[in-house]
Amino acid sequence: MLNTLIVGASGYAGVELATFLNRHPHINITALAVSAQSPDAGKRLSDLHPQLKGVVDLPLQPLSSAAEWADKVDVVFLATAHEVSHDLAPEFLKAGCVVFDLSGAFRVNDADFYTRFYGFTHQHGDWLDKAVYGLAEYQHEKIQQAQLVAVPGCYPTAAQLALKPLVDTGLLNDAQWPVINATSGVSGAGRKANVGTSFCEVSLQPYGLFNHRHHPEIVAHLGTPVIFTPHLGSFPRGILATITCRLKAGISREDIAAVFHRAYDNKPLVRLYEKGVPALKAVVGLPYCDIGFEVQGEHLIVVAAEDNLLKGAASQAVQCLNIRFGFPETQSLI
Amino acid sequence: MLNTLIVGASGYAGVELATFLNRHPHINITALAVSAQSPDAGKRLSDLHPQLKGVVDLPLQPLSSAAEWADKVDVVFLATAHEVSHDLAPEFLKAGCVVFDLSGAFRVNDADFYTRFYGFTHQHGDWLDKAVYGLAEYQHEKIQQAQLVAVPGCYPTAAQLALKPLVDTGLLNDAQWPVINATSGVSGAGRKANVGTSFCEVSLQPYGLFNHRHHPEIVAHLGTPVIFTPHLGSFPRGILATITCRLKAGISREDIAAVFHRAYDNKPLVRLYEKGVPALKAVVGLPYCDIGFEVQGEHLIVVAAEDNLLKGAASQAVQCLNIRFGFPETQSLI
Amino acid sequence: MLNTLIVGASGYAGVELATFLNRHPHINITALAVSAQSPDAGKRLSDLHPQLKGVVDLPLQPLSSAAEWADKVDVVFLATAHEVSHDLAPEFLKAGCVVFDLSGAFRVNDADFYTRFYGFTHQHGDWLDKAVYGLAEYQHEKIQQAQLVAVPGCYPTAAQLALKPLVDTGLLNDAQWPVINATSGVSGAGRKANVGTSFCEVSLQPYGLFNHRHHPEIVAHLGTPVIFTPHLGSFPRGILATITCRLKAGISREDIAAVFHRAYDNKPLVRLYEKGVPALKAVVGLPYCDIGFEVQGEHLIVVAAEDNLLKGAASQAVQCLNIRFGFPETQSLI
Amino acid sequence: MLNTLIVGASGYAGVELATFLNRHPHINITALAVSAQSPDAGKRLSDLHPQLKGVVDLPLQPLSSAAEWADKVDVVFLATAHEVSHDLAPEFLKAGCVVFDLSGAFRVNDADFYTRFYGFTHQHGDWLDKAVYGLAEYQHEKIQQAQLVAVPGCYPTAAQLALKPLVDTGLLNDAQWPVINATSGVSGAGRKANVGTSFCEVSLQPYGLFNHRHHPEIVAHLGTPVIFTPHLGSFPRGILATITCRLKAGISREDIAAVFHRAYDNKPLVRLYEKGVPALKAVVGLPYCDIGFEVQGEHLIVVAAEDNLLKGAASQAVQCLNIRFGFPETQSLI
Repeated sequence: MLNTLIVGASGYAGVELATFLNRHPHINITALAVSAQSPDAGKRLSDLHPQLKGVVDLPLQPLSSAAEWADKVDVVFLATAHEVSHDLAPEFLKAGCVVFDLSGAFRVNDADFYTRFYGFTHQHGDWLDKAVYGLAEYQHEKIQQAQLVAVPGCYPTAAQLALKPLVDTGLLNDAQWPVINATSGVSGAGRKANVGTSFCEVSLQPYGLFNHRHHPEIVAHLGTPVIFTPHLGSFPRGILATITCRLKAGISREDIAAVFHRAYDNKPLVRLYEKGVPALKAVVGLPYCDIGFEVQGEHLIVVAAEDNLLKGAASQAVQCLNIRFGFPETQSLI
Repeated sequence: MLNTLIVGASGYAGVELATFLNRHPHINITALAVSAQSPDAGKRLSDLHPQLKGVVDLPLQPLSSAAEWADKVDVVFLATAHEVSHDLAPEFLKAGCVVFDLSGAFRVNDADFYTRFYGFTHQHGDWLDKAVYGLAEYQHEKIQQAQLVAVPGCYPTAAQLALKPLVDTGLLNDAQWPVINATSGVSGAGRKANVGTSFCEVSLQPYGLFNHRHHPEIVAHLGTPVIFTPHLGSFPRGILATITCRLKAGISREDIAAVFHRAYDNKPLVRLYEKGVPALKAVVGLPYCDIGFEVQGEHLIVVAAEDNLLKGAASQAVQCLNIRFGFPETQSLI
Repeated sequence: MLNTLIVGASGYAGVELATFLNRHPHINITALAVSAQSPDAGKRLSDLHPQLKGVVDLPLQPLSSAAEWADKVDVVFLATAHEVSHDLAPEFLKAGCVVFDLSGAFRVNDADFYTRFYGFTHQHGDWLDKAVYGLAEYQHEKIQQAQLVAVPGCYPTAAQLALKPLVDTGLLNDAQWPVINATSGVSGAGRKANVGTSFCEVSLQPYGLFNHRHHPEIVAHLGTPVIFTPHLGSFPRGILATITCRLKAGISREDIAAVFHRAYDNKPLVRLYEKGVPALKAVVGLPYCDIGFEVQGEHLIVVAAEDNLLKGAASQAVQCLNIRFGFPETQSLI
Repeated sequence: MLNTLIVGASGYAGVELATFLNRHPHINITALAVSAQSPDAGKRLSDLHPQLKGVVDLPLQPLSSAAEWADKVDVVFLATAHEVSHDLAPEFLKAGCVVFDLSGAFRVNDADFYTRFYGFTHQHGDWLDKAVYGLAEYQHEKIQQAQLVAVPGCYPTAAQLALKPLVDTGLLNDAQWPVINATSGVSGAGRKANVGTSFCEVSLQPYGLFNHRHHPEIVAHLGTPVIFTPHLGSFPRGILATITCRLKAGISREDIAAVFHRAYDNKPLVRLYEKGVPALKAVVGLPYCDIGFEVQGEHLIVVAAEDNLLKGAASQAVQCLNIRFGFPETQSLI
């Protein structure tokens, strides 16, 4: 049994982590924590998220410092803001904990990246060097050895799972950047009160044009430029990414199918569509990324769907835990 | 042309007022105002509510005191919090303005009411005496003379329009209190950021059981006890009230129909259903209250539907203005 | 391992049954069946419900007669229309199968009930005599012996779980009928194409006033008259019932709490609220019925929430299976 | 006063036409018609669409042939299926009526287009020659002379209003096709009962990849190839199109702004955004198409939003009527 701490447990990803880990046969949830300033400190998780009543009634303990818990736990999940993860992770790591960080604080091994896109100077270049990017289908061996796993962003997970097989095999025409149009449910914006995410204000809209933080994350890991346009959708959960690419001359539908099958046939949490493309409802509440595509001439449209809180956050974090500790990859996820 | 000021114009009722008044042939919107502390002060109304772009682009002026505007306008609409209306209305009234207050500050002519249900001591008993309760279908003559119209609450409008004809004609069995179950759209909670009304948190739920402020408002004006149970619904606008009553022995379906027809046949903004009961969609975006009913033995169910922001707030306020100044009752509303 | 057939597997309750039974350690899903006329016959369940892709890909076999399967299976779930269940159940029962019927065909042991409320003459009075009403929290011993379990309707489950402890202990004032206002998600209307349940048509509305079939089911099993007013809500799943009752004089909040605790403290799928009342989101996707209440003087409001497809249909059916075969009551449900 | 017939009045575009025309000072709605086979024939429009109760209560008359009405009306709106419009329009035209057709039957002056994309052989090449494509902002003079106006499709209206100024001025790099990702509300699929548009089935999904009929309509009128990927969104009304283009080298943000201003500054129903891009809520229920854009290097993203039933159908049809008969262009629309 691994003693486990979830920091930031009151948010939407945190509650999904608590749900998965609560039913994991090798995990003991030692504690749930929130920032000491949080108005939720002291409440039970099920007071905030009544679906967990009788299931996970643990209190949300105010976290003053990592030291309080570092000696008592083996594993830490950080579902916290970038700056908080940046500060906390090294403390837990030094104490020997294995850390799964759901923030962006350790995703790209380039300190300058944080200055440019996150607005802070990264202080932990050593850990940035050691961090493993937890795109589970591609980093299996590295995750097995990792002490710090930087779980990918929600959009980057969908975008990379859709594009990486094509980029890695050189099927795309470099003259034209892939166009990633993606729409996320409102939970992607977090649980903090905000007029922009209030019930009467939400409607489909693009945001972050040419400047969303997930854009450089995608580019850094994919190794190719893309255009990425996120949208806020009027639904609580899920991401659907419609990606339009130009193929090199002579690439056929069969070539593409072959590449995808090679990448994912033995990956239990990516589901390929033989025909058609996924709808969002195929994945909401589930730990899969579903992928389908259509081709016409040199034009390819790949559609990827996932639950932003699961494959885009919490379930991918637990998938990484399962890989890290040698449990079945889908343990407690399906 | 009546020069008109809307205070609290940035909220959901305010924006509806601005829309109606902007197309009213006898109204000049002199200014839109918000509290001086509001983060919206200085913005244009259409910056917050983009549907008004090119329609009502007026700025939201920070209101420091009524004196700034009292001499420049003939009419004031207060779409403000109870305490704000309580303080502001008398200042505008003293300057001779006609005031339509959408808050609860002047709805019940009993200072003690405010101590008990609103938690403040009412300082303006004189204006409370003079205020006319703007339930438009019932107060036509008083509204014509009023300088201060207290526009009814959203739930009380639906509940009273459904019950008043029955109560006034003595059809109900006093031994059993009417049970008013009502569900409101989220806009009823206002535009302020709040976790409880954020997109991912809203789901159907009762609230304010036995202690919602609209309960004593209904009782005070109807003159009979009721049970009132409000619910938050997962839709932006509208109220549907399902009201279960016990009839006196021998009352027939025809008796009830006759009473409703007598009350509303010449009222253009109440629509009676010959058969069946209204669905919410019949009234969303429209200034009507729709009423239908079913009877079985001594049991009567009356269903009333309205848009909480319109007949439950802004359009009833404009309906009162039309009555007050002798314009056609539905001017600019339909 | 119990070999199991699900008839009517393509509908919303059927798909939930398939999901639960697929992960049940003592169940083998032998086949999924639909009516031979169904346009879905021959398709895979996951073609219709893509969330099951890779999870339950079994084909929907056209069912011509019970004889095809009766010898091959131990257990049959009927998620079929009333008339279909009425005809099919006896055939499976004669072959020795244990049948869990989710329709209304065997819920009330009174043949006349079917003539009056279902519009057909019941032909199987013998099985009606033997059928056990599967309100799991109350019929534990009978279900253990049953060959035919009639799983209760969605509304009746919520209404009875809320009212039965109060009725059975005589806390309610008989002079006044409980008023049950309940709102169901659209899935309650089934999966058949229908203008009334199409996306653009749904809005909150009452229906079936004084004549919904679940009314006599509630009355028959509760043994007391009630007023039951169902509503269609603008959400896919869940039922919230707000029930207003008159108490006998002198009954206190503590009396009511005690009665509820006695009824449900050892029932794992009913969750009592110490304070407050449930919101719909507490139960959507979960097998619980949540119950809370408020009292004022002689007036009591009880609120019950459940997922109409789960505790109101599929999970209660599996709960009955677990009880019938001696598995843990919540096996594969939580 | 123009006597006017609306055929197909029971559908979602029809009801919007009836609403606009009912308040038009120069229009008399002579009759509403539906196909003789429609189950709605004989009902009142307000029986189907209760929001119109007391507003438009006219019956839906079964239409057997155009001859019944052709002599009694001056103007005909066809909100009918393509084949129906194809057959009916010429009959009304021969009788001298002015026809506004909301179907695709006369949108492209190329008979072969119908064989390829609509699956029928067009029989009325003469009328196809005379038909004017009603993209109101671009066809003002031709509409003034037209007897037959083919109102554009919903997606093509948004796509063309966004792209036409750029294409016509040669700002786009021809080496790369514009990528049009657009999401429509469910009302775009019409009012017919269909599992795919039922409340519990709708979720965000792409459809019609590389083969939607609006694709060749856009290409034909824009005169340039594009990639068009429509999506079904989980909301009732509205279209949001996110269009990604490659600019010719050296084109600046100011160049683009200038081109848009030149195109639309005197067009009352296109609203340009100085900064930012539109959200869907800006246009739902309104007759505008809102347009905003962002540039980065050679990459341009244009976002266009409209109500699919209004600027994408009914209000554009009435806008064309206003132009055709010399009424103010926005008469009865704003």
